[in-house]
Amino acid sequence: MINFRPQNYLMKKIKMKFKRRTHTCGELKPTNADEKVVLNGWVNRKRDLGGVIFIELRDRYGVTQVIIEPEHNPEAHQIGKELRNEFVVSIEGTVRQRPDDQINKDVTTGEIDVIVDKLVILNEAETPPFSIKDEVDAFEDLRLKYRYLDLRRPVLQKTLLLRHRMYQLVRKYFDKNSFVEIETPVLMKSTPEGARDYLVPSRIHKGKFYALPQSPQTYKQLLMVSGFDRYFQIVKCFRDEDQRADRQPEFTQIDVEMSFVDIDDVFEIVEGLMKVLFKDIWQLELQTPIQRLTFDDAFEKYGTDKPDLRFDLELQTLNSVFEKSGFKVFKDAVNNGGVVSALVAPGCAAYSRNQIDNLTTHVKKLGAKGLVWMKVNENGIDSPVAKFLADDEKQNLIKSLSAKSGDLILILAGKRLKTLNQMGGLRIEMAKRLELLNPDSKPKLLWVTDFPLLEWDEETNRFYAMHHPFTSPRLEDVELLDTDPGKLKARAYDLVLNGHEIAGGSIRIHSSELQAKMFKVLGISKGEAEKKFGFLMNAFKYGAPPHGGIAFGFDRMVMIFAGETSIRDTIAFPKTTSAVSLMDDSPSEVSEEQLKELHIRIREE
Amino acid sequence: MINFRPQNYLMKKIKMKFKRRTHTCGELKPTNADEKVVLNGWVNRKRDLGGVIFIELRDRYGVTQVIIEPEHNPEAHQIGKELRNEFVVSIEGTVRQRPDDQINKDVTTGEIDVIVDKLVILNEAETPPFSIKDEVDAFEDLRLKYRYLDLRRPVLQKTLLLRHRMYQLVRKYFDKNSFVEIETPVLMKSTPEGARDYLVPSRIHKGKFYALPQSPQTYKQLLMVSGFDRYFQIVKCFRDEDQRADRQPEFTQIDVEMSFVDIDDVFEIVEGLMKVLFKDIWQLELQTPIQRLTFDDAFEKYGTDKPDLRFDLELQTLNSVFEKSGFKVFKDAVNNGGVVSALVAPGCAAYSRNQIDNLTTHVKKLGAKGLVWMKVNENGIDSPVAKFLADDEKQNLIKSLSAKSGDLILILAGKRLKTLNQMGGLRIEMAKRLELLNPDSKPKLLWVTDFPLLEWDEETNRFYAMHHPFTSPRLEDVELLDTDPGKLKARAYDLVLNGHEIAGGSIRIHSSELQAKMFKVLGISKGEAEKKFGFLMNAFKYGAPPHGGIAFGFDRMVMIFAGETSIRDTIAFPKTTSAVSLMDDSPSEVSEEQLKELHIRIREE
Repeated sequence: MINFRPQNYLMKKIKMKFKRRTHTCGELKPTNADEKVVLNGWVNRKRDLGGVIFIELRDRYGVTQVIIEPEHNPEAHQIGKELRNEFVVSIEGTVRQRPDDQINKDVTTGEIDVIVDKLVILNEAETPPFSIKDEVDAFEDLRLKYRYLDLRRPVLQKTLLLRHRMYQLVRKYFDKNSFVEIETPVLMKSTPEGARDYLVPSRIHKGKFYALPQSPQTYKQLLMVSGFDRYFQIVKCFRDEDQRADRQPEFTQIDVEMSFVDIDDVFEIVEGLMKVLFKDIWQLELQTPIQRLTFDDAFEKYGTDKPDLRFDLELQTLNSVFEKSGFKVFKDAVNNGGVVSALVAPGCAAYSRNQIDNLTTHVKKLGAKGLVWMKVNENGIDSPVAKFLADDEKQNLIKSLSAKSGDLILILAGKRLKTLNQMGGLRIEMAKRLELLNPDSKPKLLWVTDFPLLEWDEETNRFYAMHHPFTSPRLEDVELLDTDPGKLKARAYDLVLNGHEIAGGSIRIHSSELQAKMFKVLGISKGEAEKKFGFLMNAFKYGAPPHGGIAFGFDRMVMIFAGETSIRDTIAFPKTTSAVSLMDDSPSEVSEEQLKELHIRIREE
Repeated sequence: MINFRPQNYLMKKIKMKFKRRTHTCGELKPTNADEKVVLNGWVNRKRDLGGVIFIELRDRYGVTQVIIEPEHNPEAHQIGKELRNEFVVSIEGTVRQRPDDQINKDVTTGEIDVIVDKLVILNEAETPPFSIKDEVDAFEDLRLKYRYLDLRRPVLQKTLLLRHRMYQLVRKYFDKNSFVEIETPVLMKSTPEGARDYLVPSRIHKGKFYALPQSPQTYKQLLMVSGFDRYFQIVKCFRDEDQRADRQPEFTQIDVEMSFVDIDDVFEIVEGLMKVLFKDIWQLELQTPIQRLTFDDAFEKYGTDKPDLRFDLELQTLNSVFEKSGFKVFKDAVNNGGVVSALVAPGCAAYSRNQIDNLTTHVKKLGAKGLVWMKVNENGIDSPVAKFLADDEKQNLIKSLSAKSGDLILILAGKRLKTLNQMGGLRIEMAKRLELLNPDSKPKLLWVTDFPLLEWDEETNRFYAMHHPFTSPRLEDVELLDTDPGKLKARAYDLVLNGHEIAGGSIRIHSSELQAKMFKVLGISKGEAEKKFGFLMNAFKYGAPPHGGIAFGFDRMVMIFAGETSIRDTIAFPKTTSAVSLMDDSPSEVSEEQLKELHIRIREE
């Protein structure tokens, strides 16, 4: 509710004049001493020492202390008394160098004050619902509702300024490397993976819908067919999925595609970009080429396809040790094509029963039935399962793990990917307990390659493309498409930074015949392929070059480079995990009139 | 339909290897003579002179002539025979300097050929549905359906490369001037002007909808409240309106907002940008400040708020001449608060009856009842209405228009804006006939200022905001809001280039009280304002700085700088005037399953 003030007060306030600033609040230095200046900004803090009023005046660029002295300008002093935090003011004054003992080295303007000659209140402010400072004590929901105030906090300003710098660095890099920035449509066609498409009803064409892009994949491939050779775009994409902590319904991608390339060419371009970002943001010289690991190796060693390599703590496969074991759990796992995987936690043999129980609970949450543990001591192994193991098994085990007295060995056995995945979770947990990660840990990049092309879905009894249906299989063994498609590897790759997947891409299929074959393997009928992707298939018939590309999750990149832990803190106006904007309360109800115009109605059931 | 080839042929083709190019097709010069090179590209043209085959090999960067000599490499020659236009090939060969008499100065690579050692066909191509050349003979619908082929035409490649350059220039300029690039949401709240909103049903929240932004207006104002001080973004916006020739349902804006500014500050920033673009794209030194004209003057002189000032041909108001005229049409117009407006067409007194009839038809199409014409000769005036005019009126007329013998005077009289608007159309028509515009005409920029704040709508009997409801009225006479709002001018401005509005903006209201007052004048109830804009009004209570900004129609800017005449030719994948993408056939029908997920159904009626 707006409370109207008396008309003449309002008019006076509205007509308030102010001068253009001569400097920002982060700019003045002793060299400006005795200059007349104009500053505009917000009252960050006010101290009224009876006579003299000290104001920290804040804008995006910094904070300057301005001083209102009653004898110097009584009128300004009178107005100054009215000031409260977050008032917007314009001041004219004179720069004064501080005496040496009052210099504040923590702020860039700490060597000067501004003595106020004139003070104008440009706008008043009610008391904000939370303090405008980094260590805010408010719940996130309240901060999101008042996002425009939350965004005044220095930490968010800093993150968004970093994001700004990253946009510029990324575009400059691609521009320099002959990539063309091209915008692709936001209103496009709904695709077969359409279950997660946001749809937009057409007013002009009754009963028809556009879809918002989950990615500009088909368009960037068409741009290669058009001969643009190198394309990039920083672009919004949309996915209407059940939100997870680090997902947003709309997210930003750096989208890249190149013609006449193979994997190494894409890697070279991406590594160049990473060099720039490491250097500019972290002042680090990134060594290239970036380490590569196949999907299979990544799982075997780290139990994930996005391992955090800032610490070691590798998993080790013990199948050869236990293939003839008397311990049924291990033997069965090996003989059924599964895995026995172990992790050596150095120096943890002293873990209490309670500590080990907690680890067991942890892996059970990840789906494991239980956790086998073994404490290594000078006499051998202390473990509940020790009695099931032969002596040479125990020796082999210790030897093959290079375990030492005082170590704790943790083992899971079972189906391969599932078990390794649980071990991956355990690895992260142990790294936390062992405090292997610290703020000084150097960031670590990794390429993961040779992903499986297809995933078999037990439920629907068919293959799905692990990346997307346009991903090229490895050409060396493309014949497997006809005989054993599940074994085929893709020319796909992910870029992993500190355990986060920050980019993923592939070399694409550029032959319409191979693409048709691929659709067939995926159980997409000719008719369906024609209807959904006809234009892409058609395009391939008119001279499509070999091409490939990659897409970066920009929000996540900003998060990591900013040292933040929440995607939401990298986005000016984010949505909650349930896809709601608490600030403007969208999505919201619309009028019957609007729905009528769009030829839709809301379902009753 | 894909015709499957024999399996072994397909596999051989799919596995085809090619080398990374050493050069692009626009790069080789005599200094490369005798080098071994690899080029990848498309067959632009093939000439088979019985023995020797000449191929123009094309990529984005240029065209290089490659020569396949049968005796030099019989195998390559055999493959070369199969080539047709738009085949994708990779060649290895040796650069050969051309003899002087074969040098082609028109292309950058015209001094060399490449003699082919090895030739690989990377992909075949069917005959395209139209020729890949600038002077294409196909209808636009066919070109849009095969947009990926249309985009191979040099003129479209050139326009999109210019667009790429403009993105970089614009962002570099704003970055250099401390503007922060911030992305605003695409999924937002439907606003009162919501009739033209594209809506997006929420899957998670039944019966609720997001809207796509018609502009990021509220967000950029909130960013000013947040203290970001200077914001910019090149951003997609959406409007579901009946399409006109130069409109697209999704369009791109350069969006700008600044704090602690008045009109001159915004102008200074924009003029700096224009200087950069004029210099970089047109090699012109733009003189600043850019000419300014009030809305009233623009209409009076040019009959439009976006006059093309590359030619003069000013309108002249004759009210003072005719206020006591015996010619009722003129006198009534003057006395009813209307206008009598004239245009002198120099040297057109010789126009035939037929020519004048065509002009009459032209203004009738614009809504005029008829056109008054007068031919000036040495004896005075020859006109069907001459007999109604007194002698001193005729003399005054000629004098006040500075008309000369041989000139043709064209006059319309009636309601002010309507009549001036028709005269504006007539002015453009006469400029065409007089060929006042030619390719060498220097581009002309103009600020139009002092727009009316409000427009009265006869039908709904209420005021509408001429720009939008956040536009600040002129503060000098803000009291008119209470007494005679229709007379109030806005602190709004448009930037006009060659008769096209390329940008529009305003200083905004930053007082929640004035904003509330404005909503009241616009007939938006407190409840409605609260519901729709509550978050913005609320934000204004916590210290909103004075702020203003501007938004550029980027597509139109590219069109003008590229010298194009259609917005569609500046967009990679445009939609038709009925908002359809002919390439992917969107909007399209979606499955009942999808609609169910979104809790909507299509209306029966």
